[in-house]
Amino acid sequence: MDALQPYRVAIEPAWIDYNGHLRDAYYAVAFSLAVDDVMDQLGLDADYRARTRGTLYTLEMHLHFLHEIKQADALALRSYVLDCDRKRILLAGVFERGATGAPAAVAEAMLLHVIQNDEPASAPFSAATEELLQHLQRAAAASWPADLPRSRTLAIRRS
Amino acid sequence: MDALQPYRVAIEPAWIDYNGHLRDAYYAVAFSLAVDDVMDQLGLDADYRARTRGTLYTLEMHLHFLHEIKQADALALRSYVLDCDRKRILLAGVFERGATGAPAAVAEAMLLHVIQNDEPASAPFSAATEELLQHLQRAAAASWPADLPRSRTLAIRRS
Repeated sequence: MDALQPYRVAIEPAWIDYNGHLRDAYYAVAFSLAVDDVMDQLGLDADYRARTRGTLYTLEMHLHFLHEIKQADALALRSYVLDCDRKRILLAGVFERGATGAPAAVAEAMLLHVIQNDEPASAPFSAATEELLQHLQRAAAASWPADLPRSRTLAIRRS
Repeated sequence: MDALQPYRVAIEPAWIDYNGHLRDAYYAVAFSLAVDDVMDQLGLDADYRARTRGTLYTLEMHLHFLHEIKQADALALRSYVLDCDRKRILLAGVFERGATGAPAAVAEAMLLHVIQNDEPASAPFSAATEELLQHLQRAAAASWPADLPRSRTLAIRRS
């Protein structure tokens, strides 16, 4: 696997707000569902979770909203492993809108591998998962669209 | 008004994920609903939106997850105007959990005042709204809990 498969999002009517477009927080819901799909692609799926009690916890999430999304828009999330170590994945999701796939938003999540025993504790990935993540990270480094915004401190920047 | 009123969140069963706690993205949904409530408190309510076509667009959102939240937890969001100018509000929401109100998450949103004509365009707040925001910002500067994390670049920081 050289790249994560994009995740097609079905936009639910309840996700549209009084402004007539996708409510900000439902970008996060779409990204969260895409992360579930990435977990399946990485083998961290329901079977894995049941067998090992291992799962991913989200430590931080950042969303950059670039364009409105309407109910009728086709929407896919393309995920990139921006960084990883033995326990963590920095995953980005680019929201590709319509036939052109123009970016409508960029999301980032810092994900931590956790074993959910009585006291949940962080734990290393398996060697095979770590190797796969490193491979995906190298591929992402070559394919990440360089003009997309990244997470940052939120501040009103005065000129 | 010296401070924004906290917003009590009713946690819906559908917001709980396979890990048994509030799914990351539903922190964003709760914060988004709290922002609606803040808009009402600022007079940017449904009447205002219908009369002026003015509303707030979210440009960026950042979430710091500090503690799990379970279905049975009491949850309130306390909002702070961290910064503002003629068109923008940097709003933070602190997720206060249980009887002690211990922080379970911190959210930040950069909000832009937009008039939704055929071509939506940013526009200044009314003088009264701008004055209220400045007042709330001064109050927030005095009451913001200094030990809470703020938005930042997501990165795996290696020691």
